[in-house]
Amino acid sequence: MSHESPSLVPASAGSVSVIGLGQMGSALAEAFLAAGRTTTVWNRTPAKADALVERGAVRADSIADAVAAGDAVVVCVLDYAAVRELLDPVVGVLAGRTLVNLTSGSPEQARESAAWAAGHGFSYLDGAVMTTPPGIGRPSSMILCSGSPAAFAEHREALAALGDPVDLGEDAGLAALYDTGLLGLMWSVFAGWLHAAALVGVDGVPAGAFTPLAIRWLTTVGGFMETYAPQLDACRYPGDDATVAVQLAAVDHLLEASRARGVDTRLPELHRDMMAKTVASGHGQDSYARVIEQFRGA
Amino acid sequence: MSHESPSLVPASAGSVSVIGLGQMGSALAEAFLAAGRTTTVWNRTPAKADALVERGAVRADSIADAVAAGDAVVVCVLDYAAVRELLDPVVGVLAGRTLVNLTSGSPEQARESAAWAAGHGFSYLDGAVMTTPPGIGRPSSMILCSGSPAAFAEHREALAALGDPVDLGEDAGLAALYDTGLLGLMWSVFAGWLHAAALVGVDGVPAGAFTPLAIRWLTTVGGFMETYAPQLDACRYPGDDATVAVQLAAVDHLLEASRARGVDTRLPELHRDMMAKTVASGHGQDSYARVIEQFRGA
Ligand SMILES: NC(=O)c1ccc[n+]([C@@H]2O[C@H](COP(=O)([O-])OP(=O)(O)OC[C@H]3O[C@@H](n4cnc5c(N)ncnc54)[C@H](OP(=O)(O)O)[C@@H]3O)[C@@H](O)[C@H]2O)c1
Ligand SMILES: NC(=O)c1ccc[n+]([C@@H]2O[C@H](COP(=O)([O-])OP(=O)(O)OC[C@H]3O[C@@H](n4cnc5c(N)ncnc54)[C@H](OP(=O)(O)O)[C@@H]3O)[C@@H](O)[C@H]2O)c1
Repeated sequence: MSHESPSLVPASAGSVSVIGLGQMGSALAEAFLAAGRTTTVWNRTPAKADALVERGAVRADSIADAVAAGDAVVVCVLDYAAVRELLDPVVGVLAGRTLVNLTSGSPEQARESAAWAAGHGFSYLDGAVMTTPPGIGRPSSMILCSGSPAAFAEHREALAALGDPVDLGEDAGLAALYDTGLLGLMWSVFAGWLHAAALVGVDGVPAGAFTPLAIRWLTTVGGFMETYAPQLDACRYPGDDATVAVQLAAVDHLLEASRARGVDTRLPELHRDMMAKTVASGHGQDSYARVIEQFRGA
Repeated sequence: MSHESPSLVPASAGSVSVIGLGQMGSALAEAFLAAGRTTTVWNRTPAKADALVERGAVRADSIADAVAAGDAVVVCVLDYAAVRELLDPVVGVLAGRTLVNLTSGSPEQARESAAWAAGHGFSYLDGAVMTTPPGIGRPSSMILCSGSPAAFAEHREALAALGDPVDLGEDAGLAALYDTGLLGLMWSVFAGWLHAAALVGVDGVPAGAFTPLAIRWLTTVGGFMETYAPQLDACRYPGDDATVAVQLAAVDHLLEASRARGVDTRLPELHRDMMAKTVASGHGQDSYARVIEQFRGA
């Protein structure tokens, strides 16, 4: 990724502005530059633009200038409050352009932002970046998008510089909804993995030895999810492969092993509680998918 | 898988006995039959042997007969208490053979079993089947093994009928240790996924639409684990891709979205608590791998 690489898009291709040059925003700007897009950058703390300017980005001296320079204005700051704080004063300049908001937020915040954009006459795409900065630019990295279909069609190619743009449809809240769900899945994976790494670590197994098996196991578990997903939609949970009752017996071994090693048990206790309630409600012979009722039932 | 398929192993290949013909034991016996092994079966409730006998398995009338018929005696019942209840009366018949215990248990139970086997003069392999019955026989399915290296070498080929035998070494407790850790990871993945499916379901997104993205996301998350594993072993957690502080801000969106939809929040609250304590201890600028201290510190 260097500004000396040949331009990959025609000079007429839409220009991009990136507002917010933290870890993620800087990676986004770099990827646009690497794809040969005219890229204007702005950050509250101006020094964070220096490295990008050296690589060919245009420095905007004000946020109004940054907005005015982009056909697509990409914003990636800490939260939606910061987005509004930055952009409310320049909504007039946004009119007629597209705001692509890659800041993390809740679906409700995303829907509010779409209404705000509509009220001020600019197009709005809400997005969620499903990778860390080093994954930006890889075609395997999902860039979830929802909101204006016309804006998605217009800027899809620009967004493809960041990863694989996945269109979730017109409801602007969907990218954030999927994002929160997928981040929750990620924290759960991390928690399960860190718990396990702590556990095996006590017996002298390095994380470097355990983790390749854990990653391989994720593929197997993904296969179980494929089996169970139609069960969730049908609300029918045949336990003909593995029952909740058998897994309730197995979770006690994890609790026992964790206690014996002084490893925190809150996570497996939560799993155990959900399994035990599923069994107590008479569904012990069902598949694990039945446990969804413990989440739905709040 | 039919008894009419040609024999895949020479007639001289070691015979196998399978004790315990529940969902998993039946799948194991079927796979040995499919691989052309002479397979003797026994179950406490004898009727569960019928279908296997029709496919070519030999029915043992007593557990002693079952043990006597196998070079390798595979046992897969509910728990270790059942294993001992069944096999203590026939330890004399086990002498000189190999017991392969594929019953789920704790590492402590596995180590006790190895000592029990040594005391009675038979070889012991402890194993963990990392798939559900439909996955038995697939080369992608891990069959974790630990215990006697000589027994592993002798029976590796027989075990390959079940999946991919992975040798974890001489400490008989390791298969169960990895197993409990990996099952904990699985329940965490399930919980994160079920939580997310409940969440998006409220907004009308079917699990069948969400799950392919969740499975794709698991590959990305596996990549993060690969990045973080060496950090765990080095006890150094550079947060140059994504910090715990930024993720602490993001988990609030998940909590907010969950509350707004009546979805149980105990799981994200646990994640939030661990992130918040990591930040409070002064490590907010570190990577997520630093959260392992919340598990270790019990
Ligand atoms: N890092 C990741 O792996 C990742 C992945 C997916 C999504 N995200 C999301 O991307 C967004 C940015 O994350 P990051 O990792 O880049 O965080 P970061 O490195 O902490 O950067 C935060 C950015 O927000 C700006 N900012 C914060 N409050 C502001 C305010 N009140 N007014 C103006 N600017 C403000 C900061 O400006 P200053 O430089 O002036 O402080 C900086 O540009 C977050 O919503 C995050 O959830 C991050
Ligand atoms: N199913 C899976 O996906 C899976 C995956 C990995 C590991 N496992 C492990 O495999 C083992 C068996 O699971 P499963 O799914 O096959 O369970 P299952 O279908 O419930 O079968 C349980 C088996 O254990 C026997 N049993 C239970 N208590 C006994 C006792 N006191 N004496 C003698 N036999 C007894 C049962 O005999 P009866 O038929 O007479 O009741 C039956 O053969 C468990 O440790 C489980 O954790 C299962």
